[in-house]
Amino acid sequence: MAVFLPKGTRDFLPEQMLARQQVIDTIRTVFERHGFDPLETPAFERLETLTGKYGEETDKLMFKIHARGRNAKPGECDLGLRYDLTVPLARVVAMNPQLRMPFKRYQIQPVWRAERNQKGRFREFYQCDVDVMGSTDTLCEAECMAVVTDALGALGFTDYTVKLNDRRILADFAQMAGATDARQELSALIAIDKLDKVGREGVEKELAERGLDPAGLAPLWALEGQLDDGAATLDRLDALLTARGRAGVATLREVMADADAAGVDMPRIQVDPFLARGADYYTGPVFEVHSPTAGVGSLAGGGRYDGLVAAFSGRDVPAVGVSLGLERILVVMEERGMLSARATAADVFVTVFDDACRAASIAAARALRDAGVKTDLFLKQTKLGKQLKHADLMGFPFVVIVGPDEAAKGLLQLKDMRSGTSTTDTVEAIAAVVLEAVGSAKS
Amino acid sequence: MAVFLPKGTRDFLPEQMLARQQVIDTIRTVFERHGFDPLETPAFERLETLTGKYGEETDKLMFKIHARGRNAKPGECDLGLRYDLTVPLARVVAMNPQLRMPFKRYQIQPVWRAERNQKGRFREFYQCDVDVMGSTDTLCEAECMAVVTDALGALGFTDYTVKLNDRRILADFAQMAGATDARQELSALIAIDKLDKVGREGVEKELAERGLDPAGLAPLWALEGQLDDGAATLDRLDALLTARGRAGVATLREVMADADAAGVDMPRIQVDPFLARGADYYTGPVFEVHSPTAGVGSLAGGGRYDGLVAAFSGRDVPAVGVSLGLERILVVMEERGMLSARATAADVFVTVFDDACRAASIAAARALRDAGVKTDLFLKQTKLGKQLKHADLMGFPFVVIVGPDEAAKGLLQLKDMRSGTSTTDTVEAIAAVVLEAVGSAKS
Repeated sequence: MAVFLPKGTRDFLPEQMLARQQVIDTIRTVFERHGFDPLETPAFERLETLTGKYGEETDKLMFKIHARGRNAKPGECDLGLRYDLTVPLARVVAMNPQLRMPFKRYQIQPVWRAERNQKGRFREFYQCDVDVMGSTDTLCEAECMAVVTDALGALGFTDYTVKLNDRRILADFAQMAGATDARQELSALIAIDKLDKVGREGVEKELAERGLDPAGLAPLWALEGQLDDGAATLDRLDALLTARGRAGVATLREVMADADAAGVDMPRIQVDPFLARGADYYTGPVFEVHSPTAGVGSLAGGGRYDGLVAAFSGRDVPAVGVSLGLERILVVMEERGMLSARATAADVFVTVFDDACRAASIAAARALRDAGVKTDLFLKQTKLGKQLKHADLMGFPFVVIVGPDEAAKGLLQLKDMRSGTSTTDTVEAIAAVVLEAVGSAKS
Repeated sequence: MAVFLPKGTRDFLPEQMLARQQVIDTIRTVFERHGFDPLETPAFERLETLTGKYGEETDKLMFKIHARGRNAKPGECDLGLRYDLTVPLARVVAMNPQLRMPFKRYQIQPVWRAERNQKGRFREFYQCDVDVMGSTDTLCEAECMAVVTDALGALGFTDYTVKLNDRRILADFAQMAGATDARQELSALIAIDKLDKVGREGVEKELAERGLDPAGLAPLWALEGQLDDGAATLDRLDALLTARGRAGVATLREVMADADAAGVDMPRIQVDPFLARGADYYTGPVFEVHSPTAGVGSLAGGGRYDGLVAAFSGRDVPAVGVSLGLERILVVMEERGMLSARATAADVFVTVFDDACRAASIAAARALRDAGVKTDLFLKQTKLGKQLKHADLMGFPFVVIVGPDEAAKGLLQLKDMRSGTSTTDTVEAIAAVVLEAVGSAKS
C-alpha cells in the first residue's frame, strides 16, 4: 500500500516539534502576561456558521464534512473545518452572553484552507490570535499592538515595523475614486490593497477595470514615500479627507498615544494610508507587522471589526484582534538560525550495559527522572558501542553508563558527549551536574 | 440566525481551558522527563490510510471530508478526520525509514468520532499517547507503565490500580472455548472483554450466541476473585495453558520485573487474565489503569501491537503504546476538586482611574508585565467602582490603582482582594510582592 500525506499537510517530527513548541510556549507566555486568557473551539463548525462570512472566493476553500447517518443524501455536507479563529470567536461571544466584558482571549489552534499548492502555503496551519471583545476604547488597539510586538521581541525579532491605517481613511479614498456605495468601496479597497505588489500603475489599471476613476486618487500619490513621520502623515491626510476619514485620523492619533504609553517602540510605527488588509469585516484601525526579510509578507496583522458578533446575535459587540502568523515566523526564525535545533528533548541517555546491570540501569533512569532530569533509557538490549552510537546520532548532551563496577557500588558513570570527559558519582550528584549544565530546574 | 455548536463538540472557555492546560502541561512534563519526544500529525488523513484499521463498526464513526475541485463527484469523500493517534503514528513510521529506533514519541492532539450522543461521550476529544517503536524488549512495556503511572501521580492520583494481561493468554482461552482460527479468537475475545459489565453468565451466554463453547472456560472461573497476588496468578495460569499462553505468562513475568526496577508501585499491579481491551491490533501484553471512581472506566490503557506498521510498509516494526484518557481524567479531577478553579490566568488587574491618569495606568501595566507579572488592564474607561466590581467577579487576586496622588509620585496602589489590605509603593516593589504571593518567577 502506498502511503502519503494529504496534499498541503505536514507531519511535525520531534526536531520540528521542539522548535514549534519553543515558539508557541513563548507566545503563550507573552499572551498570558498581557492578561489574555485561553480559549479553544471545535475543529469544525456548522456550515451555516462559516459560510458568507469571508467572501465568495473563500467559501470555495473550505473543507466540508459529509453528513452522517442513514438519512444523509450523497453530497450533503453539514459541517466545515474552521477557516480562521475570528468567526468561531464571534460565535462563542454570541452564544455566551454571560461572558464579562471586556473579554480578552487568546487562541492557538490550527485552521484549514484548501488553497492551491504553493511554496510556503499549507492547507493546515496554526494561527495565534488575541482579541478584545466589548470595548470601543482605543486602548484595545494599543493593547493588541503591544502584545504582538512584545511576543516578537520575546522571540528575538529586532527589525520589524508596524504599519497602521484606518478603514475609514481608505473608504474616503474609495470615494475619491468614484465609489458610491459600500460594495464599490470594498471593490476599490481590493485594488488599493495591491499597491505593494503591483505599484501605482497597477492599482490605477485595476481601479479602471473595476469601473472606478483612478484619477480621483491623484492627490494621494504625493503621500507615497513621505510616510516616515506618522504624526506628519496624519496632518497631511487630515487636509485631504471628509469627516469620515478625519474621524479615522483622530482615532489613529489616540491609538498612537495609547501605544506610546503601553511601551510600543514608536519609531517602528509607520502610518500607511494604503494599508487595507484583506478581510471584509474590518471597520476601523488596521495594522500589520512587517519584517524586512524578502518574500515573507506580514508576521502579524489585525484590526477593529465591530460588526461581526452582530451577524450571530442581536447584540452589537465591538471587537479588536490581531493574529500572529506562526508558520511565517517559523520560516524566518529557521532561516536566521533563531531556533534551537535538537532532535530530542532529553538531556541524558541511560545505556543498558548487560543483563546483569539491567535493573541497575533502569533504576538509574528512574532516579534521574525523579530528580527532574529529562532522561531517556535505551529500550533494546544491544552492544554498548551501538547504544553510544545511537546517543551520538540523536545528539544527547550526556550519556550514563552503569557497568558492573558502578552497579556494585551504587554509582553512575556520566559521559559528557561534547567534551568527552567522564565522571563517576552518586545519582544525586550526577543529577545536579546535568541540571546545572542544561540550566533547567526540577519541574 | 440561530447559533449553536455541532453535536458532541464543546467550546472551552477560559476557566475550563486553564484547568485543561494545567493537566496537559503536567502530562507533557512527565512524558518529556521520560525521554518521549513530541510529534504532531495532520487532523485529517487520506481515507484509505484510516479505513480497515479499526474494524467495520468503527469505519462508520469516521468523519469524512468531501472531495474538492470541479471534478469531485457528489458524495465523493477522499479524506477522514483522525480517529486515534496510533494509526497516524504507524503511517509516520512507515513513511520515515530514517527515524532512529527505538523511536519514542508522545502526541497530545484531538481525535474525532461520530459517536451517538451520550453523557460523557464527545465527538471531539483529546488523546495523550506515548509509544515506543522498534523494540520487542519488555522494557518498553515497563517504560509505558512507568510513564503513565508517574503522570497520574504527578496529577495527584493516589488510588489507581494497573490491570495487566497478555493477548496470547486470551487467545488460549478462546481456543478452550472452541475457537479454531484468528477470526473466532477475536470473536471470543469480544465476549470475554465484557466480563466486567455483564458478569460470568453474560459472557457464557454471548459465547454460546457466537457459536462457541462456554463450558470450555470452566477451569478459568476458579481464577476469578483470586487475582490479588500477580505472581501466584501467573503460576496458576501456567498450569492451564498451551505453549502460546505460557509464552504470554513468561513475558508478563519479565514485564513485572522491569516495571519493578522502573519504580512502578508493584502492589498496584494486578494480573487480570480476563482483560482484553477493544482494538483488534494488540498482539502481546495489554494493560489498563483503573480508578475506584464509579462509572468512569479506565484512566489509561495500552499494549503491544507488533503488526500495525507492516500494514503500511514492508517493514515489520514492533510497537508498544499507551493512551491517557484526558477527558476522563478531567472528569474525575473535577469531581474530586483536584483542579485549580480560576476564571482568569492574570494575577493583577490594573484599573484606569480617570483620563488624567490613563497614561500612568497603561505604563504601570507595562512595567508589571516587564517584571514578569501576569497583568490585565481594564480596556474600557468606566467608573472605578465598576472596574473594581469586574475585578472581584473575575477573581483577580490583586488590583492596582493609579490615582492622581500615585501618578504624581510615580507610585502604585496595590489592593489585595482577599485580605482587603492596600499598599502604596514603587512598581518594582509591587511586582515583587505579587510574584512572591503567587509563587511564580519571571518567565
